[in-house]
Amino acid sequence: MHAANQGNKAIAIGVAALIGVLAAGQASAGADKPLPVKPSVADVVKASRASDWRPLDPENTLYMQMAGGRVVIELAPAFAPNHVANIKALVREQYFDGLAVVRSQDNYVVQWGDPDEAKPRAYKTAKAALKAEFTVPMKNDTVFTRLPDHDGYAPQVGHSNGFPSARDPNSGRAWLAHCYGMVGVGRDNDADSGNGASLYAVTGHAPRHLDRNITVVGRVVAGMPLLSTLPRGTAALGFYDKPELNVPILSVKMAADVPEAERSKLEVMRTDGAAYQAAVDAQRHRGGPWNKYAAGYVELCNAPIPVREQK
Amino acid sequence: MHAANQGNKAIAIGVAALIGVLAAGQASAGADKPLPVKPSVADVVKASRASDWRPLDPENTLYMQMAGGRVVIELAPAFAPNHVANIKALVREQYFDGLAVVRSQDNYVVQWGDPDEAKPRAYKTAKAALKAEFTVPMKNDTVFTRLPDHDGYAPQVGHSNGFPSARDPNSGRAWLAHCYGMVGVGRDNDADSGNGASLYAVTGHAPRHLDRNITVVGRVVAGMPLLSTLPRGTAALGFYDKPELNVPILSVKMAADVPEAERSKLEVMRTDGAAYQAAVDAQRHRGGPWNKYAAGYVELCNAPIPVREQK
Repeated sequence: MHAANQGNKAIAIGVAALIGVLAAGQASAGADKPLPVKPSVADVVKASRASDWRPLDPENTLYMQMAGGRVVIELAPAFAPNHVANIKALVREQYFDGLAVVRSQDNYVVQWGDPDEAKPRAYKTAKAALKAEFTVPMKNDTVFTRLPDHDGYAPQVGHSNGFPSARDPNSGRAWLAHCYGMVGVGRDNDADSGNGASLYAVTGHAPRHLDRNITVVGRVVAGMPLLSTLPRGTAALGFYDKPELNVPILSVKMAADVPEAERSKLEVMRTDGAAYQAAVDAQRHRGGPWNKYAAGYVELCNAPIPVREQK
Repeated sequence: MHAANQGNKAIAIGVAALIGVLAAGQASAGADKPLPVKPSVADVVKASRASDWRPLDPENTLYMQMAGGRVVIELAPAFAPNHVANIKALVREQYFDGLAVVRSQDNYVVQWGDPDEAKPRAYKTAKAALKAEFTVPMKNDTVFTRLPDHDGYAPQVGHSNGFPSARDPNSGRAWLAHCYGMVGVGRDNDADSGNGASLYAVTGHAPRHLDRNITVVGRVVAGMPLLSTLPRGTAALGFYDKPELNVPILSVKMAADVPEAERSKLEVMRTDGAAYQAAVDAQRHRGGPWNKYAAGYVELCNAPIPVREQK
């Protein structure tokens, strides 16, 4: 078993299983035509230049502090300007501090917010409801780089400044795609019933059927395991069935409000440059020796979006 | 936030966030044309008949016992006859008992096998290496039901007796698809270097680029959270960097070798019948009131494969 995004020389079989193996000279169903060795995504990352990366904007970066560490969320104001503004207002009035993850549904999402139905936390400056921002005018998204690969859920897909996105030239609308790690706004049946006080992150296979049904506001760029490994809830929809199972959120802060020395020094590969195209192509046409068959295709949510410590 | 496969009436917003919301009469970007209410996947499951389901075959079902409970894996001999036979031999010689999960890579896989490189466990009747079974002749797969939906990774996709599968009429080959919960065989660079002693399960977004590169042997049909919530390993590829972090496997048994009273009484919806087509269609064309936009498409790994307790 070989792992994506980790270099094409890496081997990952449970070590002992290989002793005495390697029946040399046997023809293999998959190895008739060895693939040429090619740069992997990791190789492309390694060969990239400083200009292929951009830092996170502290004014659009959230730090959600869990007992086990920091979850870093990059917000996408171009795709949900009003919700992002409201989430920033909520953060700055310390709305989230002491709230909890209340739901963890396997192969789907974790969701967090106020678990106290009887005495919900009041809003100060933040708004209690916002009009839906399921989609935005395509012109709002000025940095879309289209993938040539076909997508079943949208006429066009690609990346917008580090976020997986989609668009429909017929309607002139663009939206963020529900890939792993994307963060969206919980709502009731009414499309305009969300405000960002209840958020979720995708922890399973991309539920793209949610695209255009929810306001998506950003992406977890670091700390996903702090969310993805949370115990699954056993009540309907993966909600925790007892309040004591809720997972505390110690605080949520804007990176800009944290002393610079305490900030996460992360940078995201620019998705509108040649290095990123090379990274996606490395995923699309994987080379040998481990790979025996190259897909020649990359599905939107399988396109890596490299994040690293600032150099 | 609404959850897939759980009924279209279910609401899942973080409860308190809704107080004072619901600005009636406002036009919504997403709600201009309300979707008709339709049966959800859960509704289809509820309305199904006994004949729409099949029990698990105890001779092709593994029970992997973890400290937290039982992982149930259904094997797919039609797609990997030699590997499935070898895994059954390994299980029956108690090869896996006391081994461990040695790897958990976020948004990718968990992998298990023998962690002891110095003194690897010996095989008794099981073979040490097998020829790759990355694909099989299409004629081996007699129960393929094709999805009409386009797929980027394969000319045709669908389901084969409860497993997501793909095929290429030009080459005449069929294979299992790397969706969430699918189980495959770790190997080294040599295509013929696996034998089933090291296995992995997909715990993240479907890594379909692995299709046709690995022998896939089955699917986790129950107990996924016991694997998907395991702490992520911090060494390369998500391996645990200290032996004490490995997660013990207490035992792996064939269901057929477990007293009937102790077996998991599970059944899988038949994927070649009308009920299943209705379930997939419920996912493809989701109805109101929560949904505002129906995708009109289902991606292979987003098509639910219902499993339930036998009635």
